[in-house]
Amino acid sequence: MPQPTPSPLHCSIDDIADWDETADVVVAGYGIAGVCAAIEAARAGADVLVLERTGGWGGAASLAGGFVYLGGGTALQRACGFEDSPEDMKQFMLAALGPGADEAKIADYCDGSSAHYDWLVECGVPFKPTFWGEPGWEPPFDDGLMYSGGENAAPFRDVVRPAPRGHVPQMSGKVSGEKGGGYMLMRPLVEVAESLGVAARYDTRIESLVIDHDDRVVGVVAKQYGKRRAVFARRGVVLATGSFAYDERMVADYAPHLVGRPGAAIEQHDGIGIRLGQALGAQLAHMDATEVAFFCDPQLLVRGILVDGSGQRFIAEDTYPGRIGQETLLRRGNTAFLVIDQRGYDDGMAATTATEQLRRPITWVGDTAAELEAEMGLASGALESTLALYNTYAAEGSDPVFGKKPEWVRPIGAPFAVIDLRGSTGGFTLGGLRTTLDAEVLHVSGAPIAGLFAAGRTTSGVCAGGYASGTSLGDGSFYGRRAGVAAAGSTPVAAPTDATGRDSSAPVAVG
Amino acid sequence: MPQPTPSPLHCSIDDIADWDETADVVVAGYGIAGVCAAIEAARAGADVLVLERTGGWGGAASLAGGFVYLGGGTALQRACGFEDSPEDMKQFMLAALGPGADEAKIADYCDGSSAHYDWLVECGVPFKPTFWGEPGWEPPFDDGLMYSGGENAAPFRDVVRPAPRGHVPQMSGKVSGEKGGGYMLMRPLVEVAESLGVAARYDTRIESLVIDHDDRVVGVVAKQYGKRRAVFARRGVVLATGSFAYDERMVADYAPHLVGRPGAAIEQHDGIGIRLGQALGAQLAHMDATEVAFFCDPQLLVRGILVDGSGQRFIAEDTYPGRIGQETLLRRGNTAFLVIDQRGYDDGMAATTATEQLRRPITWVGDTAAELEAEMGLASGALESTLALYNTYAAEGSDPVFGKKPEWVRPIGAPFAVIDLRGSTGGFTLGGLRTTLDAEVLHVSGAPIAGLFAAGRTTSGVCAGGYASGTSLGDGSFYGRRAGVAAAGSTPVAAPTDATGRDSSAPVAVG
Repeated sequence: MPQPTPSPLHCSIDDIADWDETADVVVAGYGIAGVCAAIEAARAGADVLVLERTGGWGGAASLAGGFVYLGGGTALQRACGFEDSPEDMKQFMLAALGPGADEAKIADYCDGSSAHYDWLVECGVPFKPTFWGEPGWEPPFDDGLMYSGGENAAPFRDVVRPAPRGHVPQMSGKVSGEKGGGYMLMRPLVEVAESLGVAARYDTRIESLVIDHDDRVVGVVAKQYGKRRAVFARRGVVLATGSFAYDERMVADYAPHLVGRPGAAIEQHDGIGIRLGQALGAQLAHMDATEVAFFCDPQLLVRGILVDGSGQRFIAEDTYPGRIGQETLLRRGNTAFLVIDQRGYDDGMAATTATEQLRRPITWVGDTAAELEAEMGLASGALESTLALYNTYAAEGSDPVFGKKPEWVRPIGAPFAVIDLRGSTGGFTLGGLRTTLDAEVLHVSGAPIAGLFAAGRTTSGVCAGGYASGTSLGDGSFYGRRAGVAAAGSTPVAAPTDATGRDSSAPVAVG
Repeated sequence: MPQPTPSPLHCSIDDIADWDETADVVVAGYGIAGVCAAIEAARAGADVLVLERTGGWGGAASLAGGFVYLGGGTALQRACGFEDSPEDMKQFMLAALGPGADEAKIADYCDGSSAHYDWLVECGVPFKPTFWGEPGWEPPFDDGLMYSGGENAAPFRDVVRPAPRGHVPQMSGKVSGEKGGGYMLMRPLVEVAESLGVAARYDTRIESLVIDHDDRVVGVVAKQYGKRRAVFARRGVVLATGSFAYDERMVADYAPHLVGRPGAAIEQHDGIGIRLGQALGAQLAHMDATEVAFFCDPQLLVRGILVDGSGQRFIAEDTYPGRIGQETLLRRGNTAFLVIDQRGYDDGMAATTATEQLRRPITWVGDTAAELEAEMGLASGALESTLALYNTYAAEGSDPVFGKKPEWVRPIGAPFAVIDLRGSTGGFTLGGLRTTLDAEVLHVSGAPIAGLFAAGRTTSGVCAGGYASGTSLGDGSFYGRRAGVAAAGSTPVAAPTDATGRDSSAPVAVG
């Protein structure tokens, strides 16, 4: 079979002999960013068409636990008895999500967060006004609020007034371990989109952007069932195609620490939207940033100490486990061991969790640190030294070295157990196209690329390096809305005369 | 004053009314990559014009210490009594310069390294066949060979047979502390280029690339003394304009840990070459990678122990100080303290060094670790714990935790001294355009961008994350040559009839 000519990822309006259909706003990708863009564009009066690569809506969002990072004093936070402010939210995000966090974008996001929560609720996304305060990755039941970034752990709790900002949509009747949040975020939003007349074309894979003689993006070329379809976009194209976590080349080039360990992403996240923007000269940002999950149940983590390959502690074990994942993978050579005693292990295993599959078995036991050091490959005395210092302070319930909260600090006594957590990490990419606060894609010359918008993991959002659960669904939904508003508000370009509007001969789903 | 319209960084051949001159190969930038490209292109019979932004040749290379990372068994290594092989060189580079190091590029570089050394010598670059074996950033005198990457330190020395690969051009009569190596690399090469008829236009700043109707790069638009000059390139354009270390926007977006602390770069390194490539859809790679210098004399570092903000050691202090810089800035929050005793400090201060300006004064002294902990802001007992473990092994001359070599391991005794090294880092960027082994710039679609070549810090070279001194001048010279060969070997495009070849009315320097 002859190799297909590699697509240049963009083409000229002159290259399109026939347009198959026309819309005001064409959205590529029916995940969280795409559906929010579609809703706002439709509400602004635009004729919206979503092109989705798979056979249905949902994207990575539907598979996610569902945290949306919201704050500043949302109705849900208040109902649960927590005070928060946009300023506190901003200070935390700047401290935790950098270095290099975009201050203007974060300020914008925080200022609009409470109203954005209300918008989601008005769209029918359900939230239960109860708080889950135990260690964990997600609420095990259907509670709507949880700490999801380490706000109440060291080092942040002494710097910014802590407030929980992980808002989780409610899946009624959800039992521990069952996924639900992300689906219950997407479904009501898609229902709203469909009720507004947003059309969707499934099994449709975007291949190129089409530019006119003024270098404005005026459409896309896509493929559905092997057949090429050219779609004219009178007002704008929104790229909402997700991250690049599944593109081996891009991961090797930008975030090589993640090679071989993608997670919490879907194979469709192959960076196509980012490359489409690059082909038109788009700016990128923070291409090395990645979320990193740590595959051990936090109810175990908080009850022991983590040590690295030199036998030394490196973090407050009661912080957001995603920070533990990042520290381990990015800064400790992907090497960590949990050292815990019998009581701690038993208590941890008995505690309620949403992630029973992350309850790891003990790897080694020992009556002395020396026995464990040999198993762990540590220099003799290294772990003993760490334990001695830790236990001296733990006897008083304090951890001055890393600031773990007193409720989790207890001396660790023999017999000791160790869980080998080397390599227990995986994640997804956070870098992408650089966009304005109106979700316009920026050209390397500094100006927006006319007609091109983007949101979600196709873009660099609020996370420049650090992560908090919910920031992806958060900036995806928030800036997805902005993309829809901005695209719908753009001055339209007249469609070529041979484009017949909606093409009724081809399969398309209309709500 | 009206704001100038932002340049799109590229334009069409149709936009050029008059061409000011024509060459076969146009090289942007007269540093190490540019001069090597010019030499090879001229030797291949091409008519070469170098456009240089400043008033003279040299670039960042002229200001550098001059290390060129070469090995595999160069004549210099052999003359100094060291054995090396391309395979050992490759294994070290893959281990030390990642994660994500380009295996094909490194293999290519290592296979050709010994011959490349010979090429530099034949061009008149002088090297003295003597080895400097003491700790330091550079040889203090005119010795030609030194370890420059940590090859003979932990963890690499037990993994790959160590060999020194930092080849330093000889500046006759050089005294300790006087810069020389980089200048003595550039000067002979520029002389060769000029003798081959390479022309140069100074004070000329590239602004745009010009593409023809086949999307091939056929020239550049530049500015000299405020006047626009359009230069047609029949065979190719080579971008050799250096890194982006001085562009605040790009550093904030790609390598934010370096914000406010650039070093070893020049203000002309504003990423223009990278943006020119991006405007045409070029791939990028490893944009987060940075060299990081550590501002303390290695003769002091090897005689003490380094601890981080939790009072714990984190590296073998006798490794390449650039690795110490990277570990400190990238993984330890830019926080490090050197703990040393009086004898160690006195010996270190008396030892010969090329970097006397990095002999830091003592910040605190104490008779006990406890006194120092208070000054350093460490938890009481943290430093004491670290010292106790270290000294236990140091009494036997060993360091099983981090593998420092026995010659540098001695117990540290009271009275103690501490040098506060927080924030003692700075560096330059290593990421850029992704290129083939022929220095062609790759488009995001996977194909080379016709007519466009690049080398040096405008590109992602052999370093994907880690660094060794000499890899920049190394891959700049090596792939600069490839760029010259490839550009000169490209099928020429006919110059438009109004381009009159070399324009004799404008100031231009011809050797």
